[in-house]
Amino acid sequence: MPDDNKYYISYNNIHKLCQKTAKEIMARNERPDIIIGISGGGLIPARIIRSFLKKKGEKNIPIQAIGLSLYENLGLDSQVDTIGKSVVRTQWLDFGALEEHFDSLIGKRILIIDEVDDTRTTLHYAVSELQKEVEDQQRKLNRLNEITNLSVFVLHNKDKPKKANLPEEMMNSHHYIAAETVPDKWLIYPWDAEDIEEHTQMAIQQGHN
Amino acid sequence: MPDDNKYYISYNNIHKLCQKTAKEIMARNERPDIIIGISGGGLIPARIIRSFLKKKGEKNIPIQAIGLSLYENLGLDSQVDTIGKSVVRTQWLDFGALEEHFDSLIGKRILIIDEVDDTRTTLHYAVSELQKEVEDQQRKLNRLNEITNLSVFVLHNKDKPKKANLPEEMMNSHHYIAAETVPDKWLIYPWDAEDIEEHTQMAIQQGHN
Repeated sequence: MPDDNKYYISYNNIHKLCQKTAKEIMARNERPDIIIGISGGGLIPARIIRSFLKKKGEKNIPIQAIGLSLYENLGLDSQVDTIGKSVVRTQWLDFGALEEHFDSLIGKRILIIDEVDDTRTTLHYAVSELQKEVEDQQRKLNRLNEITNLSVFVLHNKDKPKKANLPEEMMNSHHYIAAETVPDKWLIYPWDAEDIEEHTQMAIQQGHN
Repeated sequence: MPDDNKYYISYNNIHKLCQKTAKEIMARNERPDIIIGISGGGLIPARIIRSFLKKKGEKNIPIQAIGLSLYENLGLDSQVDTIGKSVVRTQWLDFGALEEHFDSLIGKRILIIDEVDDTRTTLHYAVSELQKEVEDQQRKLNRLNEITNLSVFVLHNKDKPKKANLPEEMMNSHHYIAAETVPDKWLIYPWDAEDIEEHTQMAIQQGHN
């Protein structure tokens, strides 16, 4: 029997959470122009949800990966206690490569994806840095009047006190999407499973498959 | 019963292919210093294999995503018939963000990941552009004597004539890794499945689960 302190999540369950979320987004006519996956955890949901946000005959939505790691998870010797300094960028957006086909983030609908909203620190960093990025581009290109829409999608939001916030207008709208809100347990994602068959059985037994 | 012209692949199967490949890489003492996932198809295997290339107590291997699309798949109106121009970059490496913790690709062991080796065009582009990138960095930093190791990992290599090549020394060594070589059928990856339960059953019936 699965350990009750652990919450086992199967690949098929993640697939269904992405599919369900995509349907809701499409029903609201809020299909994103660009998906930003936070690496590593956001890469898998980002790729999956893209399939279901595609309209027939239209191009795939471009995915940009950004690499963000909590300082503590990088095993770096540091005494960091401010939110602004607790996240390390390991990769950032690359507009150069998109230039020809995608001019900038200004005026776009942007969907930022991670697997879990734990302390909210990483999402806070991603959203505020992307907001700054858009504002910088707006000033540079003198396009101050255009509205850019940032949304966040996570598979799981842990029901716990958060160390950082997201903008209120995001939290009070459909622009913060957690496919599931879960208790503050140890979430076991399938990509870390040593025995994926056993892991899948645990997830089925716990009813989240 | 599944359509015989289609080859259904489950998430759990992909997980096992990544796990098997990681074990082989570790057994050869060829753990990469950096993983480069080709977006979109390479993102999922890149994230999965990272779990199994991790040594206890060591840091996660950094993943960089590069976005490469075949011109024809972008739906762009074009008449491109040279290999060099048939691939569009939608994202490239971002060394700026890694600077502090990772100086360059020079002398590193680099694992490039995609889901499928179909015509080999995308892999050819990725490998030759990354080689150029390394040579540029070597000249710039005057570090011409260091050896950089590029390897390629794909889940599936389609057994068919290829439109482009990879370096011979890569093909004649363990530096080209296809977890499976498969007939030239339509590969159905799970992230495109409308009904993931049915899809998984098809994969099980076809014996690749």
